[in-house]
Amino acid sequence: MYKAAVIGAGYMGSAITFPLSANNIEVNLVGTWLDEDLIASSLAGYHPKLKKPLPGLVKPIYWQDMASAVEDVDIIFIAVTSEGFVNVFSQVLDAIDKNYYFFKLTKGLVEYKGSVVRATQAAHDMFKLKFPTLDFMWASVGGPVKAVELSDKIITASIYALNSKNLKDLAYGFSTDYYTITITDDIIGVEVSSTFKNVYSVVIGICDGLFKSTKEGMYHNFNAFLFSQAMIEMSKIAEKAGGRKETVFDLAGIGDFYVASMSGRNRRYGEYVGSGENPQKIFEKMFDEGEVAEGYLALKIGIEWVKSLGNNLINETPLLSSLYKIIFNDHDPIQELKNFTKEMSNRYRKLNIKI
Amino acid sequence: MYKAAVIGAGYMGSAITFPLSANNIEVNLVGTWLDEDLIASSLAGYHPKLKKPLPGLVKPIYWQDMASAVEDVDIIFIAVTSEGFVNVFSQVLDAIDKNYYFFKLTKGLVEYKGSVVRATQAAHDMFKLKFPTLDFMWASVGGPVKAVELSDKIITASIYALNSKNLKDLAYGFSTDYYTITITDDIIGVEVSSTFKNVYSVVIGICDGLFKSTKEGMYHNFNAFLFSQAMIEMSKIAEKAGGRKETVFDLAGIGDFYVASMSGRNRRYGEYVGSGENPQKIFEKMFDEGEVAEGYLALKIGIEWVKSLGNNLINETPLLSSLYKIIFNDHDPIQELKNFTKEMSNRYRKLNIKI
Repeated sequence: MYKAAVIGAGYMGSAITFPLSANNIEVNLVGTWLDEDLIASSLAGYHPKLKKPLPGLVKPIYWQDMASAVEDVDIIFIAVTSEGFVNVFSQVLDAIDKNYYFFKLTKGLVEYKGSVVRATQAAHDMFKLKFPTLDFMWASVGGPVKAVELSDKIITASIYALNSKNLKDLAYGFSTDYYTITITDDIIGVEVSSTFKNVYSVVIGICDGLFKSTKEGMYHNFNAFLFSQAMIEMSKIAEKAGGRKETVFDLAGIGDFYVASMSGRNRRYGEYVGSGENPQKIFEKMFDEGEVAEGYLALKIGIEWVKSLGNNLINETPLLSSLYKIIFNDHDPIQELKNFTKEMSNRYRKLNIKI
Repeated sequence: MYKAAVIGAGYMGSAITFPLSANNIEVNLVGTWLDEDLIASSLAGYHPKLKKPLPGLVKPIYWQDMASAVEDVDIIFIAVTSEGFVNVFSQVLDAIDKNYYFFKLTKGLVEYKGSVVRATQAAHDMFKLKFPTLDFMWASVGGPVKAVELSDKIITASIYALNSKNLKDLAYGFSTDYYTITITDDIIGVEVSSTFKNVYSVVIGICDGLFKSTKEGMYHNFNAFLFSQAMIEMSKIAEKAGGRKETVFDLAGIGDFYVASMSGRNRRYGEYVGSGENPQKIFEKMFDEGEVAEGYLALKIGIEWVKSLGNNLINETPLLSSLYKIIFNDHDPIQELKNFTKEMSNRYRKLNIKI
């Protein structure tokens, strides 16, 4: 029987322990230095974010004991925020001297050696520096999974993007009757989806924030227009990055973006912005309360990454550009979204449709 | 300046008069024999479904005066339910003796000459029987447009699928600063999307109905899984019918399905079913109250249509099959959706993913 360590004791790290335990996999749940309270509380029998006790097979562990916590396991899940990813993975690599099956729950891009890259690219490079001759066995996990719901055993489907067929049976083996798993080889498609669904759900939140108090439920047309355009842009980004559109137009993209648009921190962050809060200040306020709007961070570094993909991709993502202007250039949300609409209208008219 | 007649004075027929009027197009809004109350009320200054007066350029007209109402116009919008479509269009054809620009707002499949076909197929056949030498100039209108919101001037994007380039400038000409229009030649893709988003939004409603009272907001993972699978199935149906996936993965499909999943009659119908109402009885009750759940009708005849497309398409639409069993074969909603999940899990495992 396999044993696993999960690095990061926040929402997703803790939630994944439920299907793992259901499959009789013992889990060392290692909190980072930011998770001390979560570990203390979990040891006392209650996880404060999931609002319930963790399964019996889970052992909450403080960061200081990370090295021994990964020593006798076969599988390592990385479930920290994108901001902490490079630092944490580097410390994990320092602590190990054999190979593992890695599963990444982190979503987003990372800054690595002066560039913005996908987390998997950074991890691959770091791993090969330490273990030049070992196979890097890595999965990026995506799909519509709200952590609390998973821990409540709500039916959930997740997509595992694998770089090695050695991970295939292992990944399927994490499934339960409420946790359905599908696999793909398109790591790029899954990673772009996971990152940009967080970004674009901010704009869905902005739309809600703009209208919710004055037009209850009465702006779905606009939201759907934004949702549809976001999907188009996400698929273009994924394709340009080397992934596949089909991945975006399935669980990893549509599914995950749908769930992120319904609820969650990024959407909530957007709602605050739409209702007039200062984009920087409200991000920091949420951050201080332990609620990291990953979409903000992903947008901040993602816009440059999109530009770096070349071929004028940035010109094909007008919604992304408008969102950036709202969040980082002080553009008024409603005015900017009206500009976006006008821009789309002009683009539609210029389409060369043969009829 | 063009003049238009809109046939059908329900939600969508009345709502389209707002952007038309904004473009100085005079509109004869013709109610069918089922719309007498709507016309009477509109004449008195208030449209009871849109809950507001119609624009000044709109003339509400009773069915008995349909022939004269279409006589001096250039454009005819058809905005009746799919059930009434063939009958109404046939009467319109009887009343006219010249060509028009037709725009279809009706969504769904129709029964025509003993078969189930897309409404456009029926209309084309009927038109050519009457006018064998005239060009059939026809647009199927799709995209995420809730009628009340359009009449409230919420930003809305719509896609017009045209069979003739003569309609191009005309269609763009209906746009306003709140009503953005894009065009395509993929009538099939738009029609399949418009029809099946109504069908699949029933299952989103069922999921809500099942859980809403007990797990407030706590079933988004499951809903997103269903949403994503619905999109996949819709794209397969469109492709098999001769349309394009890209159309489904844009405003016509994703956008319209998103808005239908947020709110509307089909979703509400599904909610009733999920909360335990008898699927037939509650459809009839809503129908009697003037609220037609088009998704129910489309599913009823659509399942046979999907089968008729051949190549085992029906085996690639397991969610559609499950929904049919819930609505028409008395299957218990939660048990059937669990069966669907198990089925998907098995299918995922059988996928031949090369890694």
